[in-house]
Amino acid sequence: MKISELARRTGVPVATIKYYLRENLLQPGERTSATQAAYDDSHEQRLRLIRALVEVGNLPLATVRRVLATVDDEHTNVHHLLGITHHALGPDVQQNHRDAEWSTARADVDAFLTELGWMVHQDAPARDLLAKAVLALRGLGLPDSSDDLRPYARAAHELAKHELASTPRTGPRSAVVEHAVLGTVLYEPVLIALRRLAEEHESAQLFTDPA
Amino acid sequence: MKISELARRTGVPVATIKYYLRENLLQPGERTSATQAAYDDSHEQRLRLIRALVEVGNLPLATVRRVLATVDDEHTNVHHLLGITHHALGPDVQQNHRDAEWSTARADVDAFLTELGWMVHQDAPARDLLAKAVLALRGLGLPDSSDDLRPYARAAHELAKHELASTPRTGPRSAVVEHAVLGTVLYEPVLIALRRLAEEHESAQLFTDPA
Repeated sequence: MKISELARRTGVPVATIKYYLRENLLQPGERTSATQAAYDDSHEQRLRLIRALVEVGNLPLATVRRVLATVDDEHTNVHHLLGITHHALGPDVQQNHRDAEWSTARADVDAFLTELGWMVHQDAPARDLLAKAVLALRGLGLPDSSDDLRPYARAAHELAKHELASTPRTGPRSAVVEHAVLGTVLYEPVLIALRRLAEEHESAQLFTDPA
Repeated sequence: MKISELARRTGVPVATIKYYLRENLLQPGERTSATQAAYDDSHEQRLRLIRALVEVGNLPLATVRRVLATVDDEHTNVHHLLGITHHALGPDVQQNHRDAEWSTARADVDAFLTELGWMVHQDAPARDLLAKAVLALRGLGLPDSSDDLRPYARAAHELAKHELASTPRTGPRSAVVEHAVLGTVLYEPVLIALRRLAEEHESAQLFTDPA
């Protein structure tokens, strides 16, 4: 197909596609004349993945490049590939004061994950994200013990099992990464919204006058 | 206590306390001289609540005023009070194009909540939040049927039951609202972080080579 058709199918503007080609994020098409090239399904697939990483994952181009390199390196197994993807999604927790309180919170998070028996890389950004949330709870005197966090861990674990079960087992590696990025990022607001709705519903159960 | 002591106990600067006094968000202290007033526990409690609404809930002052008015109006029951609080937390979903796709997504969300049997106000902002998330899923061809959303609803409902059970049943109404704001807002990142950690753990279970 022509570049215009590729743009139509993926929703990525022609100028952006050309930029990805120049940056070597997208493999060149097959040259058909001095000014034209032909593109196929592999280009469409790759563009879908780049779009997911850039638009949904909000990742900077340098990070996109790293994820794509891992997709292309067939020697990395799927777990490693998903690990790179999850870590790329960050978030990069900016903690200006990595002081004693921060260190304690981070150590508590690490101990909690060990207690849960979860296999998570020591440098996973979500460890910092959880430590930051725990610090915020502490700052306002809210419950943050293992017992307090366990219901959230249980809910999260049930969801993750459900989600990972739907990860494609066959097909291109790019589809696995696309699935992980979209699944992780796009179902977050679903969960947030449903929790708020459930809170309102439960409050109605508990506090509405029978009258 | 003096205003300086009130500032020390609550972590709210004296200048900010004076601003809240001028804006009638905080009740005046008992005048002890031409330039001084005495404050008590009720002021401390009120300041904690204002701080939760402003700093944690990120609410504009006009909204804070509305929530405080409901706290002060002893005729509103606790469910209504929590409803006002939840709705104040928003978020105000800015949907520029409230077109046919939006209407369909919002109608699907309403149908889903009816199917779940959840009692949620028709104007709850979280309905729009969920509709927006559903639209994003649709835009990228991701699963968004009732069956796909139900695991998230189940996890959210379990958490909400657990959370509402810890809502203070006695004590001042301000404590109920403070609990709702802090609980809703501060445990969101806990849940987000734990879901990402659980995803990494589950991926390790599924995709790591036994070797």
